[in-house]
Amino acid sequence: MRTLQVDLGERSYPIYIGGGLLAKAGSYFEDHQLSKKSPVLIVTDDHVAPLYLKQVEESLENSGYRTVSKVVKAGEKSKSLGVFEAVMTTAIEGGLDRRSVVVALGGGVVGDLAGFVAASYMRGVTFVQMPTTILAHDSSVGGKVAVNHHLAKNMIGAFHQPEMVLYDVETLQSLPEREVRAGLAEMVKHGLIWDAEFADWCRDHTSKLLALDADTLVYGLTKGCSIKAQVVSDDERELGLRAILNLGHTLGHALEAIGGYGEFLHGEAISIGMAAAALIAVNRGADRSLYEETVALLSGFGLPTVMPKHLDEEQIIGAMMHDKKFKEQKLVFILPLSIGKVEIVSDVTVEEVRRAIRDLKEEEQHV
Amino acid sequence: MRTLQVDLGERSYPIYIGGGLLAKAGSYFEDHQLSKKSPVLIVTDDHVAPLYLKQVEESLENSGYRTVSKVVKAGEKSKSLGVFEAVMTTAIEGGLDRRSVVVALGGGVVGDLAGFVAASYMRGVTFVQMPTTILAHDSSVGGKVAVNHHLAKNMIGAFHQPEMVLYDVETLQSLPEREVRAGLAEMVKHGLIWDAEFADWCRDHTSKLLALDADTLVYGLTKGCSIKAQVVSDDERELGLRAILNLGHTLGHALEAIGGYGEFLHGEAISIGMAAAALIAVNRGADRSLYEETVALLSGFGLPTVMPKHLDEEQIIGAMMHDKKFKEQKLVFILPLSIGKVEIVSDVTVEEVRRAIRDLKEEEQHV
Ligand SMILES: NC(=O)c1ccc[n+]([C@@H]2O[C@H](COP(=O)([O-])OP(=O)(O)OC[C@H]3O[C@@H](n4cnc5c(N)ncnc54)[C@H](O)[C@@H]3O)[C@@H](O)[C@H]2O)c1
Ligand SMILES: NC(=O)c1ccc[n+]([C@@H]2O[C@H](COP(=O)([O-])OP(=O)(O)OC[C@H]3O[C@@H](n4cnc5c(N)ncnc54)[C@H](O)[C@@H]3O)[C@@H](O)[C@H]2O)c1
Ligand SMILES: [Zn+2]
Ligand SMILES: [Zn+2]
Repeated sequence: MRTLQVDLGERSYPIYIGGGLLAKAGSYFEDHQLSKKSPVLIVTDDHVAPLYLKQVEESLENSGYRTVSKVVKAGEKSKSLGVFEAVMTTAIEGGLDRRSVVVALGGGVVGDLAGFVAASYMRGVTFVQMPTTILAHDSSVGGKVAVNHHLAKNMIGAFHQPEMVLYDVETLQSLPEREVRAGLAEMVKHGLIWDAEFADWCRDHTSKLLALDADTLVYGLTKGCSIKAQVVSDDERELGLRAILNLGHTLGHALEAIGGYGEFLHGEAISIGMAAAALIAVNRGADRSLYEETVALLSGFGLPTVMPKHLDEEQIIGAMMHDKKFKEQKLVFILPLSIGKVEIVSDVTVEEVRRAIRDLKEEEQHV
Repeated sequence: MRTLQVDLGERSYPIYIGGGLLAKAGSYFEDHQLSKKSPVLIVTDDHVAPLYLKQVEESLENSGYRTVSKVVKAGEKSKSLGVFEAVMTTAIEGGLDRRSVVVALGGGVVGDLAGFVAASYMRGVTFVQMPTTILAHDSSVGGKVAVNHHLAKNMIGAFHQPEMVLYDVETLQSLPEREVRAGLAEMVKHGLIWDAEFADWCRDHTSKLLALDADTLVYGLTKGCSIKAQVVSDDERELGLRAILNLGHTLGHALEAIGGYGEFLHGEAISIGMAAAALIAVNRGADRSLYEETVALLSGFGLPTVMPKHLDEEQIIGAMMHDKKFKEQKLVFILPLSIGKVEIVSDVTVEEVRRAIRDLKEEEQHV
């Protein structure tokens, strides 16, 4: 078991990463002196509930906590105001008060949804993350929580740091393979933006990671979380540096949106986005090897790096225009300088993006 | 014109109180160096819009700001997640970005709604309050913003401090008389919880306040805001002292809820709540004059202080049980000790509340 401290002054919190942690949830709650008089709300989805909900409920109840649970439908569509309101109903009917804890048991969808509930219920209650996907190593660090608006993703949300993150890597064994690959996209991203050595490590451990080898996973997840934690500590509210975490995301979010949040998983969409960012950098003068190495690394994990031909360029550009990374109407992009290093560029033109989209339609997917 | 500084560390902000301020909105925005590149969203309601919206739009536009406006239906029902989502749609379609400002032009309903939009749009943008009711002297200080859940009031919200409050008292001239009285209930409350001299001043200036005399209003509103600001500065997130602002509110919110937010205005409901709190204090041993003086002060403003006979005791108690002031299932009440002084009491029994409800049904309304 590893413990990683996210350093945010009085909002600092620990991430516990290891096996078998869900079964010990109750004692972690006790260690953190969470109130036993107030009901705990566990939010999860209908894929995760049959696998792990009982375990968490029992552990908490054995320690003397009362729990109520809300199971939402699995998938991005649950990150909506409608489902948010339904979770609030459960919270109110369950009698949650200001000392209650809201738990997110699941992937990034449940984490973002439950986190926004925790941020807003009675104007904010304690939040505990219990991530069950690889992708959630990213989403559980940094305190960004949100639901989607039908016009744009993550548009409605808050910054709300958890009290702790209990990351039980045993749960990852039941993840569908496609989710494993997509989650690893964010791990690779952490290497690409910050740490060339870690990017190399990811490349060298591709097959062990895909095989969900426990020690390899714990190392990779801890490293990924710690890179994110360093960036976030430096800039909790995304005024500057934190934007680098958005490598691949401006385009990625647009792809998710025009695919109706069904065609691409988040990790797949940002994988294409990272390939595009590398290509834009190359078109601006970087060495072509930067693009090639990026694509090789991502496709090693079975991640997509080409633009599907059926996607309409106008639609992609239109969706990007709604994206919140357009600070004052200018196109802000995160572009790689080299593996492990990126820059925030605020003068990328729509034409450059169009060209990258077109070029990526001509590329062949390497798998 | 008076300026009052609300002291909250890096979240401190000024309240400007005086006549003709809306027509100068543009220059206040410039003084606060708010971005001219990002669209400003003005949220208001359909009573206020025909009276004051154009003035604000023009002033901002003359200073070079682009504005988009969203007019919601007047009334508490607009503090819902549905209307919240509609305002978000306007914000997105209007192209608001992270440097945009959301303005609340109106009373507490618009303030709470627009404030929660500002708190959540892209996880938080700048918020400016332009209160147009007397009650809003209360709601515009302290950063509490929220919408209602159909099961309970103000259940979904945030703490989000404004950048500034522009309080143009000329707008109060068009307020319906019933709203004037209801708004003054919160002013009186500020005297009752904190400052016996100010409570006396309110009593001595009852008719000037009701007649909306400009200087009297500016003094009373400034004093009311400053009491609230002192309490909030001490306890921004309501961990202790701030609870005293809830004098009359636990019962008041229940009355609003069972009246479907239509029978009582907020100020009327808390007026009955303040009478009830005084009665509970008397039943616990305080001198009966405490209750009599409270009732005399409130009824001087034409505010209700008796419990309407048609209201069902069980329903009132049931609604209170949903209220968020029930910390860990105990009944927390704010009770007066004397005029200008209250205490936070955590052991009020349901029976004591029932008795006060019954007794207040037998009282005669003095007007
Ligand atoms: N807040 C942030 O900083 C942040 C960062 C990155 C991504 N995100 C968000 O995260 C979301 C994506 O997260 P995700 O990829 O975890 O998606 P997800 O939560 O939808 O989980 C993916 C799928 O795996 C299932 N699942 C989860 N755990 C499982 C397990 N242990 N065994 C079997 N099945 C399991 C889920 O039911 C779902 O079907 C997106 O909404 C994205 O916007 C947020
Ligand atoms: N956030 C807080 O700290 C806080 C504190 C107290 C109350 N509140 C909230 O405030 C709300 C009540 O506020 P309110 O009493 O201002 O209600 P309101 O906003 O509904 O305004 C009352 C009525 O007056 C109309 N109106 C507003 N300004 C006018 C003007 N200048 N001329 C003519 N008509 C005008 C409105 O359209 C409305 O019909 C409640 O929702 C309550 O929960 C919040
Ligand atoms: Zn991501
Ligand atoms: Zn009030």
